[in-house]
Amino acid sequence: MPIISERGKNAIPSPIRFLAPYAATAEARGVKVHYMNIGQPDIPTPAEAMNKVRNTDLRILKYTPSAGVDSYREKLVDYYRRFEIEVSKKDILVTTGASEAISLVLSSCLDPGDEVIVPEPFYANYLGYAHATGVEIKPIPTFIENSFALPNIANFEPLIGSKTKAIFLCNPNNPTGGIYGQADLEALGRLVKKHDLYLIVDEVYREFCYDDEFYSVLRLAGLEKHTVVIDSISKRFSACGARIGSIVSQNEALIKACLTFAQLRLSAPGFGQLLGEATLNLPITYLEDIRDEYDLRRRTLINRLKKIPNVLCYLPKGAFYAFARLPVPDTGKFCQWMLASFDYNNETVMLAPGAGFYATKGRGLDEVRIAYILNTGDIERAMDCLEAGLKEYLS
Amino acid sequence: MPIISERGKNAIPSPIRFLAPYAATAEARGVKVHYMNIGQPDIPTPAEAMNKVRNTDLRILKYTPSAGVDSYREKLVDYYRRFEIEVSKKDILVTTGASEAISLVLSSCLDPGDEVIVPEPFYANYLGYAHATGVEIKPIPTFIENSFALPNIANFEPLIGSKTKAIFLCNPNNPTGGIYGQADLEALGRLVKKHDLYLIVDEVYREFCYDDEFYSVLRLAGLEKHTVVIDSISKRFSACGARIGSIVSQNEALIKACLTFAQLRLSAPGFGQLLGEATLNLPITYLEDIRDEYDLRRRTLINRLKKIPNVLCYLPKGAFYAFARLPVPDTGKFCQWMLASFDYNNETVMLAPGAGFYATKGRGLDEVRIAYILNTGDIERAMDCLEAGLKEYLS
Repeated sequence: MPIISERGKNAIPSPIRFLAPYAATAEARGVKVHYMNIGQPDIPTPAEAMNKVRNTDLRILKYTPSAGVDSYREKLVDYYRRFEIEVSKKDILVTTGASEAISLVLSSCLDPGDEVIVPEPFYANYLGYAHATGVEIKPIPTFIENSFALPNIANFEPLIGSKTKAIFLCNPNNPTGGIYGQADLEALGRLVKKHDLYLIVDEVYREFCYDDEFYSVLRLAGLEKHTVVIDSISKRFSACGARIGSIVSQNEALIKACLTFAQLRLSAPGFGQLLGEATLNLPITYLEDIRDEYDLRRRTLINRLKKIPNVLCYLPKGAFYAFARLPVPDTGKFCQWMLASFDYNNETVMLAPGAGFYATKGRGLDEVRIAYILNTGDIERAMDCLEAGLKEYLS
Repeated sequence: MPIISERGKNAIPSPIRFLAPYAATAEARGVKVHYMNIGQPDIPTPAEAMNKVRNTDLRILKYTPSAGVDSYREKLVDYYRRFEIEVSKKDILVTTGASEAISLVLSSCLDPGDEVIVPEPFYANYLGYAHATGVEIKPIPTFIENSFALPNIANFEPLIGSKTKAIFLCNPNNPTGGIYGQADLEALGRLVKKHDLYLIVDEVYREFCYDDEFYSVLRLAGLEKHTVVIDSISKRFSACGARIGSIVSQNEALIKACLTFAQLRLSAPGFGQLLGEATLNLPITYLEDIRDEYDLRRRTLINRLKKIPNVLCYLPKGAFYAFARLPVPDTGKFCQWMLASFDYNNETVMLAPGAGFYATKGRGLDEVRIAYILNTGDIERAMDCLEAGLKEYLS
């Protein structure tokens, strides 16, 4: 019998999805599960954009250009300008979600065995894509005690060796909710210039900044060849199923390499690009209203978390996640127990155990990521479940 | 300035798309281009299936399950049964086109440095995906003089070494139009059993068999752990832009490894799966009518090719490609000239140069792949252009 490849055997399961079977059994026994483990918003996809797909007169659903539909890429130029990002169509490659963008950028910037520095905790699938592309993540630790702030730049230097090719950030940050501001990015900019590294920033939560202004890495002057942005419409337009993202960089050679890989998969999804283009016709206030809604959810969640005994958390500044420490030794087991063995008034909550967001073994065991993608009423009920669950679990 | 990875620099450009800039200049000077270089049919996507997307009442375009929408996977079980393929839902993974299926299967079956045997010429992107996944293609030559028939099984043996993990076929074949029948597959089945190899078959042209019955590799008894099918709705339903394919195998460990990789990209496109599921409600006669239309196109094309002096071709038995030898030393240059410097009554034709379909340097230089995806009137006009173009080019 033929055997699975080593990389297949060692493929890294998603920590966000591995408890799904337990959620299914909870539902099977009639318990309502509040899904706060995954960044799947309950906000409707904008009807105007959905209607663009509904009203299509397309007769043949053809391949689109490998770099993306021209008119969509042109509109993205205007979209990025809202954030003082000055790029042109040729700098933008439309991808099948941010997922594909990560894969293409890692493959084009790094060879197998090369290293990328990522502040930890980080979006769990970075680890999966690093494994899939043969790249090694060198984590630089950040800590809940100071809201997972960016470490001092001097702390990066010892991690940079001959194999180091890039620094990879998520800003605003999934899973910590942190934001890297202009000063942080300028300091990192000097560092990557000094060492000839790429500075790759996943900015899919760009609109979700509650207290401070967002500052894109693409605004750093003189770093046009170093900076690369990963993007997606999934979160801002609640269109996770569209599978539409993008890569943005003024490094021509990089975009060319990404495009050559992208030609292999022929094109990004056609309907999704139709939807993506239509979202850019929405008034700017649309996303401001969405941000205000998430701000309310953020405050609702944190107010509740702060009242639960021995839970450590801080007010996240961006994205739609809180990363919290729970008074249990292993949140993996606790989250599983919440689904398999617990309910509160026939409801429970699903969270993402923290360890999966760390490359360093042993870190994050008592932490969880909580996505505030539910309406405030559901958040309140989910927190009722968490509070009651912790009480019962600890007794 | 940071540099591109070696794999990025060496990424293999698609031979089907690299002449696109010349086609654009032809169009810019007002010349109509008949695109027979790419398998993009001119047949409408079935309106019934498009309407399913148009009439969706989906409010939130959510992530779908990583393995694919349940109801779609269930319907695929019935679809495969039409071809006497007996599989269940758990054996089917929905993918973002056949492209992703190829990438996931190669990654799950082979490690970097491992080898896969592929009859040559083959679909050009196999080479690109082998490069992207670090796998080496060992081509086994087939020849136009005997319609690119499968080589004698004894010829495979010398290519099989300790690094060989799989044999990969396309059946019906892109680009040759050949079909591997039951006897061929049984012989290959014995070979892969003897050597513990995977037998991976790309069956996206399953319905396009004009003279003989189609026989799926999944029907081979006792080879459930060895056989894997790559599939896609792009060609049969003229839905290339949907980006929906599948992996089918009864090897549980293989499907599990593919799924773990697939979880990284979260889900396949949502609208595309809606369309895919709707195509399975069409009457079986729908695809029979499509096949009859392509059969007509096939005969029209071959009749014309046979009349052009010194063109060598044969009647393809399946898929919608003809692979022909032209009386020119380098079809890459000729195809470029046809776009850049030639027209016939203000029209020209774009073909795919043959060399890109070979791993062996120097093979296929005088060959082309011609996709008969246009209506017979357009095929006639395109062949007028080819005939006149060859005459002028050779004079």
